[in-house]
Amino acid sequence: MSDQDELTGPVQVVGTGLLGTSIALACAASGLDVLLSDTSADHLRTASGLGAGRPFDGTPPQLVVVSVPPDHLGAEIAAALDRSDAVVTDVGSVKTAPLREVAGRAGSNRYVGSHPMAGSERSGPLAASSALFEGRPWAITPHVLSSPEAVTLVEALALRCGAVPVRMTPDEHDRAVARTSHLPHLLAALVAGRLAEAPAGHLALTGQGVRDVTRIAAGDPRLWQQIISANSDAVLTLLSEVRDRLELLISAVDAGEGESVTAILEQGVAGTKAIPGKHGGPVRPTRSVYVQVPDHPGELARLFADAGASDVNIEDVHIDHDPGRPVGLVELLVAEGRAEHLLSSLEARGWVTHR
Amino acid sequence: MSDQDELTGPVQVVGTGLLGTSIALACAASGLDVLLSDTSADHLRTASGLGAGRPFDGTPPQLVVVSVPPDHLGAEIAAALDRSDAVVTDVGSVKTAPLREVAGRAGSNRYVGSHPMAGSERSGPLAASSALFEGRPWAITPHVLSSPEAVTLVEALALRCGAVPVRMTPDEHDRAVARTSHLPHLLAALVAGRLAEAPAGHLALTGQGVRDVTRIAAGDPRLWQQIISANSDAVLTLLSEVRDRLELLISAVDAGEGESVTAILEQGVAGTKAIPGKHGGPVRPTRSVYVQVPDHPGELARLFADAGASDVNIEDVHIDHDPGRPVGLVELLVAEGRAEHLLSSLEARGWVTHR
Repeated sequence: MSDQDELTGPVQVVGTGLLGTSIALACAASGLDVLLSDTSADHLRTASGLGAGRPFDGTPPQLVVVSVPPDHLGAEIAAALDRSDAVVTDVGSVKTAPLREVAGRAGSNRYVGSHPMAGSERSGPLAASSALFEGRPWAITPHVLSSPEAVTLVEALALRCGAVPVRMTPDEHDRAVARTSHLPHLLAALVAGRLAEAPAGHLALTGQGVRDVTRIAAGDPRLWQQIISANSDAVLTLLSEVRDRLELLISAVDAGEGESVTAILEQGVAGTKAIPGKHGGPVRPTRSVYVQVPDHPGELARLFADAGASDVNIEDVHIDHDPGRPVGLVELLVAEGRAEHLLSSLEARGWVTHR
Repeated sequence: MSDQDELTGPVQVVGTGLLGTSIALACAASGLDVLLSDTSADHLRTASGLGAGRPFDGTPPQLVVVSVPPDHLGAEIAAALDRSDAVVTDVGSVKTAPLREVAGRAGSNRYVGSHPMAGSERSGPLAASSALFEGRPWAITPHVLSSPEAVTLVEALALRCGAVPVRMTPDEHDRAVARTSHLPHLLAALVAGRLAEAPAGHLALTGQGVRDVTRIAAGDPRLWQQIISANSDAVLTLLSEVRDRLELLISAVDAGEGESVTAILEQGVAGTKAIPGKHGGPVRPTRSVYVQVPDHPGELARLFADAGASDVNIEDVHIDHDPGRPVGLVELLVAEGRAEHLLSSLEARGWVTHR
């Protein structure tokens, strides 16, 4: 395995959108010299202004990170290989398509594809953060001619950004993300598309469930069209499987065959259980503790101080803050066995909890 | 409109699962006498033990809330109408199906259907909370013969639980939830079902997107099968629309027709924009501020104290706590225009932020 100290810089980042700027910020924060390129002078200025690095001035880089839209990946990777002797990676969502354009070129042994599993439905340098990759998987996809040194350097980049490198072949990667990213995106878009056509008043019944299902469908349509198109074979295989299941589901609902509907829903439950825990470990059972928090400055701090004093580790927090109400509701997620202790402890300190 | 003081109790809750127990807890917390019934002695004991009320002993209720699985709703509503002169509501996810069984019965003017838009992928009384309905929409669906007094009383129940009553016809309700709840659930199950069949190692690339899309697919398959079956007409209409769109999508991806794929994705974006803000208001643009927080007790409290002192209202919080690391990452969501001020303010107090 790799060590992040292999990477000494300079690092050139080509394309200062959300991913490129986030990588540049993480590299710059760790003390590396970062060189930025972008065809948009606006993006370049914004990224530099955020402290992501300085405009590319011809300084030879140790590593080039290509972070441009899918349709331009192949050309930009090839240009980067031609321009210097640097190792070149890209962070595109599809790995076999750019490889086809690089294969056979001089210097292709210096190319190693990669793909951080992080992003946002927002885009552009202003949405960037050096913390975007913290604890996230980052696929490293060497091809057969990639040199071991190049692979090590790209893994060092992932580590430097706080991510967890996961090595796989480009083909395996593309089939994996078709399932874990591209199919979910397309289906979320189909569900969201039905909302766009809802009769007046019907969306008043929108709950948290449909918000979660459709959140990623807000992503940039042109970017996603390019991703889908670059991975069309793997995506089509899965879309056909879903079409077949959907036909089954429609027949079963139409015929009132409850057992067939249940079987499809049970496979869904099995799928949610197959997802690994956030940090690769097992999913730990948590319970929600709800606390009323007056809408005054400092009350949230007092709640966390009291929760801290009860010696219960808070796994996550949600704040449901309705601007029209004098009291907000805070949901604290804690290990299942610690919820009762936290509740009594907070109540003893005068907090109104909901059981 | 209604006043929550109309409801003076006793309230009888039939069925002490997640919803029934949550309603009982909210009513009991506001000082009402709550009577609990369940065919499961276990659930009844648990709900009483949580403080949700006392076992039904024949005391005549003012209001009966039927909270049983969809297949049993009609029979339980009818039984409740026969048993006393109380107003009867149910909180089932489908409103026309139980109504068909009630229509024409003596006392049907005392029945008003309702449906709180809140729930959880967990079930049973232990997952219940009196805060479950806080700020959520609660559909109130009178039929043509419902008496105004009965409607007022059921609205008072929704208000008492902290929810926002939304009045509509049973038919309109069912078409609305087919779109905002039942279709999203089925599609989430189809996406999750593909994960269940993933080759080994592919799920290592699971990101937050697919977790969100599939979260609700973890719900109880038998319960959801009954919901879908009770609302099959409205669900089939939407499933057919999705099938047609899916066919279009498959042809477009197969033929490399980028513009058609983009059009489908754009309709998805339009759908996400059509969703109202969490509390019915407009969606306010927020920005994420990431802060490193050492994994010591009290550090979270210190962060919130410092954030509070900077006079920035925190809209939501996410904690990304990897047990293997000495430092956790906390994401604070704040109004877009306040992010820079919060960042500088926290940095001045010694916090490591990510820009």
